[in-house]
Amino acid sequence: MSQAFQFQLKNTDGKARLGQISMPRGEIRTPAFMPVGTVGTVKAMYLDQVRDLGADIILGNTYHLMLRPGAERVARLGGLHNLIRWEKPILTDSGGFQVMSLSGLRKLDEQGVTFKSHVDGSLHHMSPERSIEIQGLLDSDIQMQLDECVALPAERKEIERAMEMSVRWAERCKVAFGNQPGKAMFGIVQGGDQPDLRIRSAEALKALDLKGYAIGGLAVGEPQAVMLQMLETTLPVLPNEKPRYLMGVGTPEDILKSVAVGVDMFDCVMPTRSGRHGLAFTRRGKVNIRNARHAEDMRPLDEASSCPASRDYSRAYLHHLVRSNEALGGMLLSWHNLAYYQELMQGIRAAIAENRFADFYAETMENWARGDIEPV
Amino acid sequence: MSQAFQFQLKNTDGKARLGQISMPRGEIRTPAFMPVGTVGTVKAMYLDQVRDLGADIILGNTYHLMLRPGAERVARLGGLHNLIRWEKPILTDSGGFQVMSLSGLRKLDEQGVTFKSHVDGSLHHMSPERSIEIQGLLDSDIQMQLDECVALPAERKEIERAMEMSVRWAERCKVAFGNQPGKAMFGIVQGGDQPDLRIRSAEALKALDLKGYAIGGLAVGEPQAVMLQMLETTLPVLPNEKPRYLMGVGTPEDILKSVAVGVDMFDCVMPTRSGRHGLAFTRRGKVNIRNARHAEDMRPLDEASSCPASRDYSRAYLHHLVRSNEALGGMLLSWHNLAYYQELMQGIRAAIAENRFADFYAETMENWARGDIEPV
Repeated sequence: MSQAFQFQLKNTDGKARLGQISMPRGEIRTPAFMPVGTVGTVKAMYLDQVRDLGADIILGNTYHLMLRPGAERVARLGGLHNLIRWEKPILTDSGGFQVMSLSGLRKLDEQGVTFKSHVDGSLHHMSPERSIEIQGLLDSDIQMQLDECVALPAERKEIERAMEMSVRWAERCKVAFGNQPGKAMFGIVQGGDQPDLRIRSAEALKALDLKGYAIGGLAVGEPQAVMLQMLETTLPVLPNEKPRYLMGVGTPEDILKSVAVGVDMFDCVMPTRSGRHGLAFTRRGKVNIRNARHAEDMRPLDEASSCPASRDYSRAYLHHLVRSNEALGGMLLSWHNLAYYQELMQGIRAAIAENRFADFYAETMENWARGDIEPV
Repeated sequence: MSQAFQFQLKNTDGKARLGQISMPRGEIRTPAFMPVGTVGTVKAMYLDQVRDLGADIILGNTYHLMLRPGAERVARLGGLHNLIRWEKPILTDSGGFQVMSLSGLRKLDEQGVTFKSHVDGSLHHMSPERSIEIQGLLDSDIQMQLDECVALPAERKEIERAMEMSVRWAERCKVAFGNQPGKAMFGIVQGGDQPDLRIRSAEALKALDLKGYAIGGLAVGEPQAVMLQMLETTLPVLPNEKPRYLMGVGTPEDILKSVAVGVDMFDCVMPTRSGRHGLAFTRRGKVNIRNARHAEDMRPLDEASSCPASRDYSRAYLHHLVRSNEALGGMLLSWHNLAYYQELMQGIRAAIAENRFADFYAETMENWARGDIEPV
């Protein structure tokens, strides 16, 4: 562990990068997948399970946490780690994305956003400075700048305006964050689907010399090819020696392809949300456990997995639990999916370390394409 | 373990009884509390947790399981134990109680009941023989006779008619069950709130020489005093050397008081259902974790407990989880409550073994009456 936030690039294989973030609360092996602990809990999981699966860091949603239990309350309770019993690093988003997507947005201007809580209808104001203040009250280890994320498709003018304001907000967030050697504040590249705007955004943020860079405003409905094109455009502009985080992504395939172009960090609700709806991600692609073919299949999702949820519970039982809307169904499938995501990241890291990422990529894609085991 | 179903009365202290049921799948220490695994899952719990808390047996609901996944399907999958991964004994109810309370009941006569599934509206018929057949397909270790449970208050005539038919159904169930040395079929005493009908029911069932006896039709809305009076009336009629099971009961206080008059077995959804709604049972009475007094209380529910849910998670976090409708809230409070119920049963058994049940009873009641720890 390190008293200061440090990123070490350990190996590259093609554009894929193997690295490690070191900070006081622990080390984060990259490429890393961060399970999403929305409101102080990775849904339907014990955090002990999340840790045991190999997650080095989880994500918390500032928007949810500021409304409930509230940032000042979390601070009085000793910070988010203390409240939820998670000792490793936590990354928090700025709250901006969910303010804009979940709340009743009232006003957005240079100063910040005014919005109505979806929980109790109360009015709140969030500026870049307040976002950083809240993330500090939560005692977040990696904090994100407030940005404006424009839903695609959008007018170029609108994308440009939001991108430029986001750069100005990054400056304000950097000032508000100040000097905290054991923590980090990341900037967020915006620019929608416009390559030149992405480049301008990345260059402006690079000039701010931040500790890490996120790519925002992707995986918001655009085709995967557009997302990858934006990454290929943006990443070369960013400094090599800083971590790159693709926000809110994604499917296992999105992750594998993004690692291939040089992304280091990911977060997504997909493994837990899909799990609650009966969708399992496996080495052999997606499995919809609600499907009747599983009703009398006593085989597990993946007998070769070391995760009990994947290895010890039959498809027939999972099918029954999900069909019956039983909590244990979501518990087991969230566990399985998070295990699969961490296993994928572990496989990616090992492959880059051994300079065989291209082979790993091909094999992994091939296995997904093979599809599920034959029905019984 | 025993190849045959056996009940051994190990000690009595006043009317309280310490015993042990031995059967091929394991031993059941009595007085026993059976967590309810409604539809093949003790809600929001891993069965490993249930076992680790000291539960020797769980209950399955025949009505739910016959509809989903279906009795014949469970049999094809190797029985309920195999499907849900629980190796110890399982007791199943007859399905009758829930047919009458949950389904669209169409017809009830001497032959049995016809009802409409609450899941898909399909029509089903259940006779005493079919109930036993289904419980056999589930591979249940302790099976219950089909009975008719009359909701109180009710006309004496109606209570008497249902009680008499239930006795005739017990005879039919006994014949249908046949000779299965490693398993047991229990009769169910009915008779509502009428002492003489309870006695007649118990005598008639006793004459059938069944392996155990349940007391049904209580805890259906009548005052606790009526329940206890019915137990005191009924239990002396039943044979000493057979286990007595009070169905669907109850609060910790109901259980303690029922043990005091000679009951050996209990089941209830209360610890899990209440847990999901934010109500915790503790050594110091009931705690409503939704209450604002817990919002900034970093103390656990019970620091002296050996259950992680009770000892390691703060009230503030539990409060937050329950208020936010997060799955983990129900998971932790169900775990805590089941731990408390098993701890209570363990305390009861130890006290009877040492002939100090009266003291244990007084201390336990006193602690409950003291109420929760002072607010912070």
